[in-house]
Amino acid sequence: MPFMFTIFALIFLVSGEKSTYIVHMDKSFMPKAYSHYTHWYSSIVDSLKSISPTLNGQHQSPQSLVYTYDSAFHGFCAVLSKQELQTLKKSPGFVSAYNDRDVTLDTTHTFEFMSLNPATGLWPASEYGKDVIVGVIDSGVWPERLSYNDDGMGDIPVRWKGICEEGQDFNASLCNKKIIGVRYFNKGLLAANPNTTLSMNSGRDTKGHGTHTSSTVAGNHVNGASFFGYALGTARGMAPRAHVAMYKVSWDEGECASDVLAGMDQAVADGVDVISISMGFDNVPLYQDPIAIASFGAMEKGIIVSSSAGNDRVIGSLHNGIPWVLTVAAGSIDRLCAGTLTLGNRMSIEGWTMFPAPAVVKDASLIYNKTISSCNSAMGLSSVGYGIVICENGSFYEQLSYVSQSNAIAGIFISDEIFEDSYFNFPGVVITSKDAPVLINYVTKGAKPVASIKFQQTFFGAKPAPMVASYTSRGPALSNPGILKPDVMAPGTLVLAYWVPDTKTAYIGSNIALTSDYKMDSGTSMACPHVAGIAALLKGAHPEWSPAAIRSAIMTTASPFDNTGNYIRDLGLDRKIATPLAMGAGQVKPNCALNPGLIYDARPQDYINLLCSMNYTQQQIKTITRSSYTCSNTSSDLNYPSFIVFYTNGTTTKLVQKFQRTVTNVGDGVATYKVKVTAPEGSIVNIYPTTLVFGEKFQKRSYTVTISYQGDSSGEVTFGSLIWVEDNGKYAVRSPIVVSPMINTWSPFI
Amino acid sequence: MPFMFTIFALIFLVSGEKSTYIVHMDKSFMPKAYSHYTHWYSSIVDSLKSISPTLNGQHQSPQSLVYTYDSAFHGFCAVLSKQELQTLKKSPGFVSAYNDRDVTLDTTHTFEFMSLNPATGLWPASEYGKDVIVGVIDSGVWPERLSYNDDGMGDIPVRWKGICEEGQDFNASLCNKKIIGVRYFNKGLLAANPNTTLSMNSGRDTKGHGTHTSSTVAGNHVNGASFFGYALGTARGMAPRAHVAMYKVSWDEGECASDVLAGMDQAVADGVDVISISMGFDNVPLYQDPIAIASFGAMEKGIIVSSSAGNDRVIGSLHNGIPWVLTVAAGSIDRLCAGTLTLGNRMSIEGWTMFPAPAVVKDASLIYNKTISSCNSAMGLSSVGYGIVICENGSFYEQLSYVSQSNAIAGIFISDEIFEDSYFNFPGVVITSKDAPVLINYVTKGAKPVASIKFQQTFFGAKPAPMVASYTSRGPALSNPGILKPDVMAPGTLVLAYWVPDTKTAYIGSNIALTSDYKMDSGTSMACPHVAGIAALLKGAHPEWSPAAIRSAIMTTASPFDNTGNYIRDLGLDRKIATPLAMGAGQVKPNCALNPGLIYDARPQDYINLLCSMNYTQQQIKTITRSSYTCSNTSSDLNYPSFIVFYTNGTTTKLVQKFQRTVTNVGDGVATYKVKVTAPEGSIVNIYPTTLVFGEKFQKRSYTVTISYQGDSSGEVTFGSLIWVEDNGKYAVRSPIVVSPMINTWSPFI
Repeated sequence: MPFMFTIFALIFLVSGEKSTYIVHMDKSFMPKAYSHYTHWYSSIVDSLKSISPTLNGQHQSPQSLVYTYDSAFHGFCAVLSKQELQTLKKSPGFVSAYNDRDVTLDTTHTFEFMSLNPATGLWPASEYGKDVIVGVIDSGVWPERLSYNDDGMGDIPVRWKGICEEGQDFNASLCNKKIIGVRYFNKGLLAANPNTTLSMNSGRDTKGHGTHTSSTVAGNHVNGASFFGYALGTARGMAPRAHVAMYKVSWDEGECASDVLAGMDQAVADGVDVISISMGFDNVPLYQDPIAIASFGAMEKGIIVSSSAGNDRVIGSLHNGIPWVLTVAAGSIDRLCAGTLTLGNRMSIEGWTMFPAPAVVKDASLIYNKTISSCNSAMGLSSVGYGIVICENGSFYEQLSYVSQSNAIAGIFISDEIFEDSYFNFPGVVITSKDAPVLINYVTKGAKPVASIKFQQTFFGAKPAPMVASYTSRGPALSNPGILKPDVMAPGTLVLAYWVPDTKTAYIGSNIALTSDYKMDSGTSMACPHVAGIAALLKGAHPEWSPAAIRSAIMTTASPFDNTGNYIRDLGLDRKIATPLAMGAGQVKPNCALNPGLIYDARPQDYINLLCSMNYTQQQIKTITRSSYTCSNTSSDLNYPSFIVFYTNGTTTKLVQKFQRTVTNVGDGVATYKVKVTAPEGSIVNIYPTTLVFGEKFQKRSYTVTISYQGDSSGEVTFGSLIWVEDNGKYAVRSPIVVSPMINTWSPFI
Repeated sequence: MPFMFTIFALIFLVSGEKSTYIVHMDKSFMPKAYSHYTHWYSSIVDSLKSISPTLNGQHQSPQSLVYTYDSAFHGFCAVLSKQELQTLKKSPGFVSAYNDRDVTLDTTHTFEFMSLNPATGLWPASEYGKDVIVGVIDSGVWPERLSYNDDGMGDIPVRWKGICEEGQDFNASLCNKKIIGVRYFNKGLLAANPNTTLSMNSGRDTKGHGTHTSSTVAGNHVNGASFFGYALGTARGMAPRAHVAMYKVSWDEGECASDVLAGMDQAVADGVDVISISMGFDNVPLYQDPIAIASFGAMEKGIIVSSSAGNDRVIGSLHNGIPWVLTVAAGSIDRLCAGTLTLGNRMSIEGWTMFPAPAVVKDASLIYNKTISSCNSAMGLSSVGYGIVICENGSFYEQLSYVSQSNAIAGIFISDEIFEDSYFNFPGVVITSKDAPVLINYVTKGAKPVASIKFQQTFFGAKPAPMVASYTSRGPALSNPGILKPDVMAPGTLVLAYWVPDTKTAYIGSNIALTSDYKMDSGTSMACPHVAGIAALLKGAHPEWSPAAIRSAIMTTASPFDNTGNYIRDLGLDRKIATPLAMGAGQVKPNCALNPGLIYDARPQDYINLLCSMNYTQQQIKTITRSSYTCSNTSSDLNYPSFIVFYTNGTTTKLVQKFQRTVTNVGDGVATYKVKVTAPEGSIVNIYPTTLVFGEKFQKRSYTVTISYQGDSSGEVTFGSLIWVEDNGKYAVRSPIVVSPMINTWSPFI
């Protein structure tokens, strides 16, 4: 099930009652009298208190200053009444304030599926991410899990500030050379819910989500990992030698934006190299999105942020569509959790099952007749005796439920569904309609047809793979549709990683719940840390690369093809060919990202130029950029490695849109690239020049892209690509091009 | 469940029809013309065919000679009509013949429980059984099980004849340096059932029994062994460096005495050092008991045979009560497969559970009221909702069944039963009546009582342990009551060892069966290989010891005390103090057996003297001894390390019985022993002399025991002991003494 939860809403409270606000300040206004910004913020909040009367005789909260922020951005979080907020807005240095708001969390053969290997490519080039520090903003860690063992880990980098110290917000006892920092942030949560008792007031994970994502990013080598016997093998994170710093902001009791901000702010202050954040804020403009705000500061310091696209399935539902972060969609992998069905005639069929126990179904009678085979009622199955019942033409989950309540010992389900969830509470196997005739033939012609099912099988090389996950949130990004989002796709479906103890991860029958050390979970939450890990490896291999360069390398080397050599298909689109609105540039190819040939770079000022083009107020822009900025070079045309143009749905007007791009040669020196364009259907794409000649490494060359297209009353999304191909065939630098309707009903920021 | 099965009976067929007979021959009658005994036997059988007409026009079986035997005894197995049998009986050299008959099969912290350790005692002294070969007569092996890995194994001893060769009866492919021989025997089975198709016509195990017993004898070190998470730890056989030779005689399709004989005969011929046989023939005199016959030959060659007492529970049901073998009873160990019940008030109670999956039962409502707490009807539990139901005052298995069909998510069962079986098909835990008040108090006084149960726990040090298993067959031995049987007790209850794949080892709900690599099985079948392993270790440490010496060392050092320091109790006797009729000399103490101080030895002639006293015919004795023998020294008083006397139940006549014993000093040389007697209640035991002085090693000393006792109309069994205590306290050589009624209704050999 795509893992996801909506955090309890801190809706504006009735006037007079207090609420939690995140306040952005311009530090340059700080009077010299204050030795530290904390004192300044405190004095501001204190002055509000002295002005505003205590309402309704309520006691004032002694802890109304919840957080101060100084790394990713400047400001504080405070519990204020509306009246206090109005006063605050008049203070010198005030930039903006918004309510602490909802956050939506999203959710291992994967390294093999992505061809990471010890012999060649990104793993050896980066020494598996040695010395790189990944900050994970999530629900904490369960440090006893073997993924966090520090065998073979290098020493903690000397630059690291976030050393584990016991005390406020720290959990030294959870740390070693793998987990080099565990901090936790819940003041916002407690401010909003003063009577809450936390089930676990420490960095220890009680949800599982943070343990899963952080072990996916950088888990150490663990043998014999499996989920109830499925996917048995070696578990290992993307960057198995990278260090992890966990910033716990997600709690059993909920989450608050102010805590997320505090966690990211601290990660930036501590000096992580990469941030992985598998959660997002829905329906917010960039200047009110804590992740957008904190990640701007991170980007300025050279920290790349990988984030999840969300699990909302539909067009335009994507979150974290932030121009300066990497936005990751989720896809499937080529692993099949399987059962082997062997008929009495020795024919055997591989099917899908995740029944979570080593069930024995051996030489049992097959039960098949047309009156019961829809398996859609308890009555229908009431006559079924001890045997294996065959179900067809129905909904799998409904059939599974009825079979599990019957006297059958197992079910065979004929269905072409591809499953993205591990729920399978009764012995059985799903076989395809293509394989079904062998079974039906045998069962209808044999005298006493019998079969056996062997569970806990795992097969690799399933085709086609990857496919875009049905649940992954689709672009465009409402907060800034002009930048094509998501950026790339990574494995997100049925990803195996460690989970926390005593939580329900599987079911048998109607009321038996089981736990397991590992969980096979699905969601963009699982895809995001894969890309964070790859970013960490790239950071290890190319310490000088900017966040934009790392993102560019990952995007331009991503592949639109699956393991059959055909275009990747979309499970959310009836397995039609996936568009970049679902998967961005395509499936990440980490070893290719190591040597991308060309890089689309971007500096902080480029993002400011973009913000300047966005109809934001000065205060809104400053909320993101914090410091003063100039809009002298306003441009909506960010040097991004992808292209998207919009038409108004239902119109057929001819449109022309022009882009300028600059690429930096990060290849070996002298090189010539020629462009290869696949235009979206119905569009014309012109590139100038069509050849780029580089005389040396780090040389830059610019080109323009002109897309001529027209609206379409069918509202279809068309897409193509632009590839700079190096003359010797060494590099192919690919960018997706999308022509999309601008959906009228979008009302992003209600 | 005490593993046991009765093999299909080959009852005498109607006259004229053929049956399988085991025929004993005196080889000294073989005419010189025959170069080999096989030719002689063939010619005898052929001659019968030529004489006897084909009955009813049936085709004669071309394979009427099923086996020839030449190692453990001389003779053959053939399919004969009654008429042919009558003719055969007149042949020169004929000794005896009997029908191929029924055999009854019987079924790891154990090494720790028995204090085997690398630092001191029998393991280092024997180098873990290095170079010793144990022949296991059973259902074959599953060679891929890690117990059979040959890491650290020494080379195959050069004396070993039974090398694995592919071909008839051999399975080289199943062999390595751990399993150095795999042979299989099914001609008797096929002769009796000509139309049978064997499911696995090789030495490969399909039942699990042979894999379990052979890995218990000599399994190599395996980490992470468990039964569905219970008893998790390192699995290891008793003699982890001993070699195993498997003689498969037990089949999915049944077993035949002739195959058992053939297997034992081959084991003797191959030159094994120890034989482990976890099966037995019920209700047969020694001269018709294939194990008695084959083991006599083994004993003559210095091979010690360890056998199982059987799982028939009642007095006089014991099989393998053979004077020249070791007969092993089963007891419990100190391991508890457990669940931890934690109440909402944080009190916690350890209970018994073997629910075979990592169930999550967390903070669930406790349901307790007097109207349903007997949990003995579906109706009663129909009102139970989602929660943990508390059951009391009933039969556990009945309550478990009803709870598993209700809507409850788990059960708590208040019961003082001690379980010898792993069946536990629904989440729950059994707590004792002593622990129950804590729970009942909480549930009746709390407002919203909740509890959690943690499964897959294992605790060691359970007390008291061992206890005699309820199922273990009790002596006396019907075939020769004058020798006290069983000899000793070893762990037999819930013994963890490898099992074969795809077999049902546990259940969830009413129709889900599970398999596991390991099985926790119970039976004397599990106890026997423990003692075989100890015998192998003793053979390694004292290669010169005779089978009787090894048995004596094991018996005289066995302990009648449990881990609380009190007398071992009997689960089959309401936990009253166990008698030697249940456990022989007591629980084996392998490290003590290494240095027993004194030995009660016996030579083949001593057993012949005993047979001479048994009212057997010359032919019957010869069937066992094979060769000529003299009865010049007839004596029922075998030099055995235990004593039993009988009275006629209901009489109160005074009786006196005298025994003579000779002990050999195997201690360090000069030693003085003084006797310490605990007379059975109501009896007087006199020893003469009461001091034995030894001047050197291997010196022998004799003493007499006079037991004066009288009958008892209550029919009670009384018991005591006789201990020779070395003056420095270094050795205590203990023999049990039993005064038992001779039960009138025994009719052993119907």
